[in-house]
Amino acid sequence: MINPFFKNIGPFKLSNLISQIDNISSISDDSLISDIKNLSEATKDNITFFHSLKYKDIAKKTKAYACITKHEFSHLLPKDCKKIFYKDVLLLAAKITEKFYPSSIMDSNNFDLIDIKKKFKEITCGTNSLVGEDVQIGANTIIGHNTIIEKNVIIGMNCFIGSNVIIRNSIIENNVHILDGAIIGKKGFGFIPIENKNYRYPHVGYVHVKKNSEIGCGSTIDRGSLSITIIGENTFLDNQVHIAHNVKIGDNCMIAGQVGIAGSSVLGNNVMIGGQAGISGHLKIGNNVQIGGGSGVIRDIPNNSKVMGYPAKDFRKFIKENK
Amino acid sequence: MINPFFKNIGPFKLSNLISQIDNISSISDDSLISDIKNLSEATKDNITFFHSLKYKDIAKKTKAYACITKHEFSHLLPKDCKKIFYKDVLLLAAKITEKFYPSSIMDSNNFDLIDIKKKFKEITCGTNSLVGEDVQIGANTIIGHNTIIEKNVIIGMNCFIGSNVIIRNSIIENNVHILDGAIIGKKGFGFIPIENKNYRYPHVGYVHVKKNSEIGCGSTIDRGSLSITIIGENTFLDNQVHIAHNVKIGDNCMIAGQVGIAGSSVLGNNVMIGGQAGISGHLKIGNNVQIGGGSGVIRDIPNNSKVMGYPAKDFRKFIKENK
Amino acid sequence: MINPFFKNIGPFKLSNLISQIDNISSISDDSLISDIKNLSEATKDNITFFHSLKYKDIAKKTKAYACITKHEFSHLLPKDCKKIFYKDVLLLAAKITEKFYPSSIMDSNNFDLIDIKKKFKEITCGTNSLVGEDVQIGANTIIGHNTIIEKNVIIGMNCFIGSNVIIRNSIIENNVHILDGAIIGKKGFGFIPIENKNYRYPHVGYVHVKKNSEIGCGSTIDRGSLSITIIGENTFLDNQVHIAHNVKIGDNCMIAGQVGIAGSSVLGNNVMIGGQAGISGHLKIGNNVQIGGGSGVIRDIPNNSKVMGYPAKDFRKFIKENK
Repeated sequence: MINPFFKNIGPFKLSNLISQIDNISSISDDSLISDIKNLSEATKDNITFFHSLKYKDIAKKTKAYACITKHEFSHLLPKDCKKIFYKDVLLLAAKITEKFYPSSIMDSNNFDLIDIKKKFKEITCGTNSLVGEDVQIGANTIIGHNTIIEKNVIIGMNCFIGSNVIIRNSIIENNVHILDGAIIGKKGFGFIPIENKNYRYPHVGYVHVKKNSEIGCGSTIDRGSLSITIIGENTFLDNQVHIAHNVKIGDNCMIAGQVGIAGSSVLGNNVMIGGQAGISGHLKIGNNVQIGGGSGVIRDIPNNSKVMGYPAKDFRKFIKENK
Repeated sequence: MINPFFKNIGPFKLSNLISQIDNISSISDDSLISDIKNLSEATKDNITFFHSLKYKDIAKKTKAYACITKHEFSHLLPKDCKKIFYKDVLLLAAKITEKFYPSSIMDSNNFDLIDIKKKFKEITCGTNSLVGEDVQIGANTIIGHNTIIEKNVIIGMNCFIGSNVIIRNSIIENNVHILDGAIIGKKGFGFIPIENKNYRYPHVGYVHVKKNSEIGCGSTIDRGSLSITIIGENTFLDNQVHIAHNVKIGDNCMIAGQVGIAGSSVLGNNVMIGGQAGISGHLKIGNNVQIGGGSGVIRDIPNNSKVMGYPAKDFRKFIKENK
Repeated sequence: MINPFFKNIGPFKLSNLISQIDNISSISDDSLISDIKNLSEATKDNITFFHSLKYKDIAKKTKAYACITKHEFSHLLPKDCKKIFYKDVLLLAAKITEKFYPSSIMDSNNFDLIDIKKKFKEITCGTNSLVGEDVQIGANTIIGHNTIIEKNVIIGMNCFIGSNVIIRNSIIENNVHILDGAIIGKKGFGFIPIENKNYRYPHVGYVHVKKNSEIGCGSTIDRGSLSITIIGENTFLDNQVHIAHNVKIGDNCMIAGQVGIAGSSVLGNNVMIGGQAGISGHLKIGNNVQIGGGSGVIRDIPNNSKVMGYPAKDFRKFIKENK
C-alpha cells in the first residue's frame, strides 16, 4: 500500500527502532528500515511481524529484512530474515508503527476546517458543512448540511454526500452515494490488552470506496491498520451497517441493514447479505455467496454457496433442520 | 395511496410509456394511463406489475388496465387486463414509476432550507436547525439543535424533535417524540440487480408516524416504494432500530433497541419485540405477538403468539429445547 | 445515589404523595418522605417499591419507611415497613418519582446553549459546538464540530470528544474518548404499558463513564431510572453499541461493534464481548467472562466463563455441537 495520507517519518536504523522498548535485548544492526508492513507486502528494507500460525504460509515467503515474532515460530520464517523476539508481538509492532507514523494513533480533530462553499465555489453544498485543507472534491458532487469532510480525503465526480456525514482518511471514487449520518474513515477498534491500560493500535490505512457504490444512513466504515478497508464497485450498503478495519468487500455486493463485518475479513464479488447478519474477523467469503438474514458466519465460505444460521451452514440444511 | 409529496407528471399514453424501453415490442394502444400502483390498489386507468406467485390471489382480482408480468403468469391475471411481457418485471415497473415520478429516484439534497426560527417564529427551536419551504409544523412543537426537516414534511402539534434529527417525506402526527440522531423518510434500500450497474428502485411513498409515538436515538425509518411506511399510534421504538420501506407497524407496539424489520412486513397491534430481534421481509405478524430478544423471525406469526429463537419458534418450545 | 443533576423537590408527607392517585385508599400518615429509592438503597425516610419476586431477598432487608407492593408480596417485607398496595406497582412508583423529580420525565431540549468557545476559552473546540450553562469541562479536553453538551454534564481533563456527539446528564472522567455521533445520557426506554397511552417512566439517574474509557461512533448509552448507568475504567466500546438504562459495566472490558446490553444488567471486570452479541436485561455477568460474537445471553454467567451461541452456552459445547 502506498500511503497517501499518513506521513512516514522513517527510515530508522533497526537498532534505534527497538532501542527504547522495554524488556528487549538491544540489537547492534544499523540497517536502515524504511517502513513496517504485513508479511505479504513487506519488502527487503521493511520490518514485519508474525504472531499467529494462521499466517505461516505467508510467513515462509516474506521478503522483509526483519520480523518480530515468538521463539517458537522462528523456524517458519526464511533463514535470512532477521528475527526479533518479543513476548507480545502485536504490541511491539504497534509501537514500531507508531514510530514511523506518529500521527496515526489518535483521530485528533482537525480545527482548520472551513466552509465547503468557500473552498469549492463550484460545488453544490448545504449549510454549515466543513472541509479540511487537503481535501479534494470532484466536479458535480453534491454535499448536504452539517457534513464534515475532515482531512486526508479525495472525493470523485458526481458523488452524492448527504447531511450529518463525517469522512476522513478516505478515497471516494466517482458516482458514490454516501447517505445521511454515515461515518467513514475513523481508526479501527484495535487495542492490545494490557492490564489497566490498553494500548491503542495505530491505524495508518484508509478507506477506499470504489465507483457507483452506496453507503447507507448511520453506517460506519473504519479505516485499516496497516492495510486498506475496501468497498468494491457497485456495492450497496443499507442503513446501520458496520464495516471494521481492513475488511475488503468485492464488486456488485448487496449488504442489508444492520449487518456487521469484523476486522480483516475479505468478501468476493456478487455477495448478498441479509439484514443483521454478522461475519467474524479474518474470514474469506467467496464470490457469488448468499448469506441469509440474521446469520452468524464463523468460518470461511467457498464460492457460489448459500448459507444461513448461527453458526451459518448450508441453506438447505438450515431450512430442513428448522422446518 | 394519495401521494402528498411526489408529483405525478402523467397521464401518459400506454404506447409512449413503454416505447423507449429496450427489448420490448412496441404497443399501439394509446389509452391514457394515470399512474402505476400495486396489484391491489391499481384502478382501471392504472398500470400495475405481477412478478411473484406470492401475489397470485391479489393478481386475479386486480382492476388495473394493464399489467407488466411474465408469460407464465399470464393466465393468473383477469382476461381483460392487458398483459405486457418483460423478462425483468421489477425493472420495467421501476422505469415506468420513474416516468411518472421523476423526482423520486434520488434524495437530492434540498438547498433552499432556512433557519426554522425564521420560518416558524412561534416554534421553540435550537441553534442551526433548518427547514424546507413546504414544511408544516404544528403549535407547541419543540425542535432541538442541528436538526434538518428537509422537504415534504408535515409535523403535528406538541411534538418533540431532538437534535441532529433528519426528516423528509414524512407525516408526523401530534404528540410524537423523535429523539436525537433519528433519520426518517429516506428512500428505501431497493435495487434491481443488473450486472455492474444496479438499478435504483424509485421510492414514491412516505413515512407516516401516528400520534403519541416515539422514535429512539439513531433509528432509521425508510419511506415506502409505492406504498407507505407506517408507525402506529402509541408505538415506541428504542435506539438504533431500523424500519425498512413499506413496513407497517400497528398501535401500542414496543420495539426494543437494535431491532430490524425488513421491507414490506406488516405488524399488528400490541406487538412487543425484544432487543436485536430481526423480522424478514414480506411477513405478517399478528396482534398481541411477543418476540423474544435476539430472535430471527422468518415466517408469519399468528395473533397472540409468543416466540423466540432463530428461526423464531414457540417460546415454551425454545426454552424447553435450550434448558 | 446522590443525584447530582435532577432536583428533588421533596420532602412530601406520605399522605400527600399518594392522595392524588386514582384508585388508591387515602392514607392518614403524615410522615415526611424525602425520596424514592430502590429496595436496597432506600433509607428510613424513603419510600420504595417491590414488584417482582426476583427481588424478594433484598425486600426482606429494606430499610424504607414505606413500600409500594402487591397484597401477595406483603409478608416478604419487614413488619415495620408500611405497605402501600396498588395494582400496578411500577406505575405508582413512576408517579411518585415524578412528584419528587418533575424535570426527569422529558428530555426537553435546552435552549440556553452557547458556543463552547465562548464559555471555555481555553478549550480546543471545533465549529458550531454548543454547551449548556451548568456544564463543566476539564483542562486539555478537545471537542469536535457540531457537538452538543447539553446540561447536567461534568467532563474531566484530557478527554477527546468527537464531532456530532450529544451528551447530557453524564459524568465523564479524565482521559475518556467519545467518538463521532455517540449519544450519551438520554432517558432510558422505560414505559409502563397502559392501554392506548403508555406511561413514561421517569429517569432521574445519570451516566458515569470512568477514566481511560472509549465510546465508539454512533453508540448510545442511556441514563439510569433510579440508578446510574456505569462504564468502567479502561473499558472500550466499539461503534454502534447500545447500552440501556441502569447497566453497570466493570473495568478493562472490550465490547465490539453493534453489541446491545438491555436494562439493569451488571457486568464484571475484564469482560470481552464479540460483535453483535446481545445481553438480556437484569442479568449478572461475572469477571473475566468472554462472550462470542453474535451470542444471545439470557442467563447469568459466572466468573471466568467463555460462552457462545443463542442462547449462550459453554463455548466448547457450542463449538462441539456445531462442527
